[in-house]
Amino acid sequence: MTPQHHLPADIERTSIRIITEELDMMGLTPPPEHEAVVKRVIHTTADFDYARNLRFTPHAVEQAVKALHAGAVIVTDTNMALAGITKPGLAKLGGMACCYMADPEVAAAAKEAGTTRAVAAMKKAAQEHPGAILTVGNAPTALLTIAEQIENGLRPALVIGVPVGFVNVVESKERLFAVCEKHGVPAIAAMGRKGGSNVAAAICNALIYSAAEMLDPSARGWK
Amino acid sequence: MTPQHHLPADIERTSIRIITEELDMMGLTPPPEHEAVVKRVIHTTADFDYARNLRFTPHAVEQAVKALHAGAVIVTDTNMALAGITKPGLAKLGGMACCYMADPEVAAAAKEAGTTRAVAAMKKAAQEHPGAILTVGNAPTALLTIAEQIENGLRPALVIGVPVGFVNVVESKERLFAVCEKHGVPAIAAMGRKGGSNVAAAICNALIYSAAEMLDPSARGWK
Repeated sequence: MTPQHHLPADIERTSIRIITEELDMMGLTPPPEHEAVVKRVIHTTADFDYARNLRFTPHAVEQAVKALHAGAVIVTDTNMALAGITKPGLAKLGGMACCYMADPEVAAAAKEAGTTRAVAAMKKAAQEHPGAILTVGNAPTALLTIAEQIENGLRPALVIGVPVGFVNVVESKERLFAVCEKHGVPAIAAMGRKGGSNVAAAICNALIYSAAEMLDPSARGWK
Repeated sequence: MTPQHHLPADIERTSIRIITEELDMMGLTPPPEHEAVVKRVIHTTADFDYARNLRFTPHAVEQAVKALHAGAVIVTDTNMALAGITKPGLAKLGGMACCYMADPEVAAAAKEAGTTRAVAAMKKAAQEHPGAILTVGNAPTALLTIAEQIENGLRPALVIGVPVGFVNVVESKERLFAVCEKHGVPAIAAMGRKGGSNVAAAICNALIYSAAEMLDPSARGWK
């Protein structure tokens, strides 16, 4: 292997050092349990606001890593988030990720019920993979559907609630987080307006790499 | 169609009204030519920093819209950005978008040349589609490759330079923009550290919707 092939990994390490130093300088050093997720989201966005915005239920990361080791499926609400999830990382865990937004059955169900595809896609996800990691980076209605399903008994392994936007977004994340806390469902959310498919994928990747590192500690030094 | 089917469009309109009001209040009202791009990037990120960060060569949007009407191909540096580009919008223009990152030939060329896949993918893009809209949301090395190719005579229809990160990113965007200005190549860049595949897709979508609106002014009211 030529030295250039090491470049992306070197750049990643340098980036994380810079992020760590700047977080420390700003007095925003994340607790060890949240470190990998917070730093990867900042790496993906160059936006230090996420050190303040990201909220975790107690032991959410630990529970998510356990779920990934047990083969939990990751379901996303956009194909863009799905495209951003690390395929080599998932393969190491024998894991799987999917998205139902382009599913013809979902389009038909949405039309019949007079709802959005995002809602119908999350309903299908809840049916097909009740113990999944449900990831929402785009549609607040998808997050509200998950909250409703949790009230009705659904117990996903984790809910990642990071839709972005200006209408119903802040409220959807607050509602989701409250419902998850109430029913003991692990959750990671970006409070406020910010988020997105890139943030959703970054959180999934931080969890996947953390889970993979436990199986092979030599694999990466991300923290 | 039930009323709920209109909801996403209503939400988009309300979001844009909020973004417009807040930009006005902050004294950051973008010039009319940049409006669609700036507002769509803020819509995608909820990050008003982009009103300050986005830089355009003169008439870049007008030239990009003309190129899209003439069937210019959009090439992205990640499959995530590709996944975020509006397929119905592109179909209206009879356009095409592609990404060479997963191309086996690119992997082989990168290995042989001792370089990264991002560099090899942009070299292939320059060869296959010399008049394309080249879009970089991730790899600063891809952007530097484009700058080099422009120095050597390549004339893309537009370069979108919005990689995100902490190492070589700021410099790569400054270099790209200077080279584009020098050689009269249209460019849109997010100066500073911020950017990403989501920002890259948002800029493409703003241009696609602007181009589609000109063909069918009733289609959308995005501004």
